[in-house]
This record gives sequence, structure tokens and C-alpha cells, in this order.
Amino acid sequence: MNLIALDSSGQTATVALVSGGKLLGEYTINHKKTHSQTLMPMLDALCTAAEFDPAAVDAIAVSAGPGSFTGLRIGAAAAKGMAQALDKPVIAVSTLKALAWQFYGSEELVCPMMDARRAQVYSGIYRFQREAEGARLTVVAEGAALPAEEQLARLNAMQEPVIFLGDGVEVHRTLIETRMQRPFILAPLHRRYQSAACVAACAAAMLAAGEEPMPAALFAPEYLRPSQAERERAERGETAG
Amino acid sequence: MNLIALDSSGQTATVALVSGGKLLGEYTINHKKTHSQTLMPMLDALCTAAEFDPAAVDAIAVSAGPGSFTGLRIGAAAAKGMAQALDKPVIAVSTLKALAWQFYGSEELVCPMMDARRAQVYSGIYRFQREAEGARLTVVAEGAALPAEEQLARLNAMQEPVIFLGDGVEVHRTLIETRMQRPFILAPLHRRYQSAACVAACAAAMLAAGEEPMPAALFAPEYLRPSQAERERAERGETAG
Repeated sequence: MNLIALDSSGQTATVALVSGGKLLGEYTINHKKTHSQTLMPMLDALCTAAEFDPAAVDAIAVSAGPGSFTGLRIGAAAAKGMAQALDKPVIAVSTLKALAWQFYGSEELVCPMMDARRAQVYSGIYRFQREAEGARLTVVAEGAALPAEEQLARLNAMQEPVIFLGDGVEVHRTLIETRMQRPFILAPLHRRYQSAACVAACAAAMLAAGEEPMPAALFAPEYLRPSQAERERAERGETAG
Repeated sequence: MNLIALDSSGQTATVALVSGGKLLGEYTINHKKTHSQTLMPMLDALCTAAEFDPAAVDAIAVSAGPGSFTGLRIGAAAAKGMAQALDKPVIAVSTLKALAWQFYGSEELVCPMMDARRAQVYSGIYRFQREAEGARLTVVAEGAALPAEEQLARLNAMQEPVIFLGDGVEVHRTLIETRMQRPFILAPLHRRYQSAACVAACAAAMLAAGEEPMPAALFAPEYLRPSQAERERAERGETAG
């Protein structure tokens, strides 16, 4: 199985290549949000260094949201553009599930928290279920935009240890430390943010479980809530025109 | 804390930057062993993309072995060269411990296995001990060059679930699957090989635990066994001259 994977849902721009089921390379930058200028050159550099022919991919795996509206649109444009040019399908991977894959195989509940501004986080709760020679990601609570406090209250009710990761952890660290009544781990530096290798690994697991990739034309990001422009328009009582 | 981290101990060439305790970027290629030509240009590209000034580092973290003799010497030359030019110290990170950091926080024993040829693996056994808000790597069995079968026998005696990773897993997969009498996980594609972000995270944990970096001049790789040239010379009854 050959994949191109990418994630530009947050501050991280990250691309990865899988060839024959093996991670051929990954290139990740957590610095400034200039994804529209950096994402494709990073992928180009990675393909050149790894002598990878994009025409040989089976699908383009893309982090489909939630996340930054602009970031998700850049990722979607890049993925759809490549997929249509190469006549390959797209695998839409939940950004939150891909983040959870940073802690593949962990016994704890995994809670990715992405800063969603307006005192909210994009967050879900996941668990890795043991299987022969591996583990399968299961959804304990679907990804949603909600107040961090509300997610912590749900986790406390679950009475299990938790691993937190994502850029929402820095924003809500004090809240986590004061409210959590269960043992928890805050992700160390190498597991905090988005990683295209996680997108690729999650996509490979989805394919192995029988999920079908989708035609590029059908793919659209999942924002999980309306954009600021849409909210403001709604507040003014206008409708889309 | 600012770090440059690199690992060229196996087929993987991987570099990472840490700035203010945050992973600023990582660039990893698992393709051909041309590390002498690729490692420094990869680091250069990463520094440029992340607008990172190498002069601002506190130390150079390098995967110190075991591993490929040539690969370790390339990594050592790169790390020592940069450290001496920038007048910064070196943090020597065990390649096996850095690999174990791929499964930071796991409940299982973590067993990195690197193919060492001659029916041997470089392998150690590690455990992450829970601490407040995190986990600390502890050594269950020191890294050594030994037959894969011997390591599997030790693991079976320990009666605990195990996670295997490293390029030795592919080589000895059938052996693992037939001999292991405990539950085990084989690392999925995004956690199989060396990662400079793991080297950086391990180095950061070493510093936080009070370990001192070393002057560049004192650093040398840990090969764990004599090179082929040294073995052949010894077999001929010659001594180093």
C-alpha cells in the first residue's frame, strides 16, 4: 500500500509517505501558519529525497477536521488537487482520531484537545482496544466543539486515567491540572501535535478494516461548527446567498 | 530549552529541532543509507523552514548507538562537528532508549530490536514508570548484542505483555510470532523506526533528571560489539597498530 498523507489542520504542517506499508518519510514543521506556501514544497522535497513517485499512490490521506478553517481548506485543496490530477481517491481521516494515534496502544483513554478559541476545544475521547498483535482505535465520545470544562467533567465521570494532547492542552493546562480527579499524562514534546505519519497509520488501519476511500470530488472538510463569517452572518439574521 | 537532535544509526536518517521545549520540526527519511550525503542537508532544510538559528541551541542530542557502524560514525561526526563549531555540548542518547520513546507511557514492556546481522539483534528491555503528569523510562535489561531467541526467552520469563519495534522485528517476525508466549504488539508503521523527535524527547528527559551533557570532544558512539574489521583482525591474531 502506497499513501501520501498530510495534515494542515493546526499550526503544524506535516506530510508523510508510505510505500509498501512502510513509512518512507515524514516532514513536519510547527512554526507559523504559512501552510499555503509550505505544504506542497515540503511534500515535493520529501518525494524527491525518498525517490517516491506520487503517481504510484493508492490514495491521498488527509486530515479532514476539525481544526483551523483556513488550514483545513488548504489541506483539502492540496489533497483534492493531487487526487484529481493523479486520478486517485481520498481517505478522509478525522484530525482528532489521527491525533489519538500519537498514543497508539496506550491503556489510558486518549483525549486530543485542539484549541477552538471562544473558550471551546475540539475534542473527542478514544480508546485502543487490544487485538492479536496490535490495537484498534475505538470512539468513546465523538469529536465535538465544546467547553474544555465540559470535556473534563465527562472524563472525571469515566473514572479512568487519561492522556491529553493537542494545542488545546497548553491553553487549558491550569484547568486540566486543577479539575482532573483521575491520573493523567500530558503528552511530552514529541507527541503533542499533529503528525502526518499518524494520519497515514490511521488511514492504513481504516483501509484494513474495510473502509472505502472516497472519490476526490466528494471530499469536504468537517468543520464541526460554523465559521466566524457564517456565525456573524447568522447573528445579523442574513442567510447564505 | 533548544536542541538539535539526530539519528543515523540505521536505515533511517532523521533530524529534529526543539525550541523552548517545543518540537519545532522533524524530518525523517527511511530510504537508502546515504546518510553522509543527506543528513546535513536535511537539517539545513529544516532549520531554514523553521527559521531556527543553530547558534541558539543548548546542546546537540545524538543517537549514540548501538547500530550500523558507518551510520553511527556519520551521526557522531555531524554532532561533534556542529557542537565544536557552535561551542555547545553533546547529549549522547542510547539508540535503543530513543526507540523505546516511540511508546512513551505504554504499560507494556518495550523491546526495541535492531538487526545486528550474524543472527543477532541489538536489543534492550524498557518500562515506562508512572509519575505525576508523565512517565519515566526505566531499564529492565540493558542494551546488548545477542541472539533474538535469547531476548525472546528472557521476555517470556518476565510474564508481561511486550511491544516490539525496530528493523529487527521484520527480520525476526516469524520467530517472535512462534516463540512469544505472552501477548505482544508489533509496532504499526508510524512507530517502527528511529525518530529524531524521540531522541530529542529522551534527551530532554535526561536533562530534566539532572544528567549533564558532555563536551563534544569526549563523545564517542557505543557500538556494543567490535566491528567486522576488528573481528577479522582479531581472528587473524593481529593487534591494533
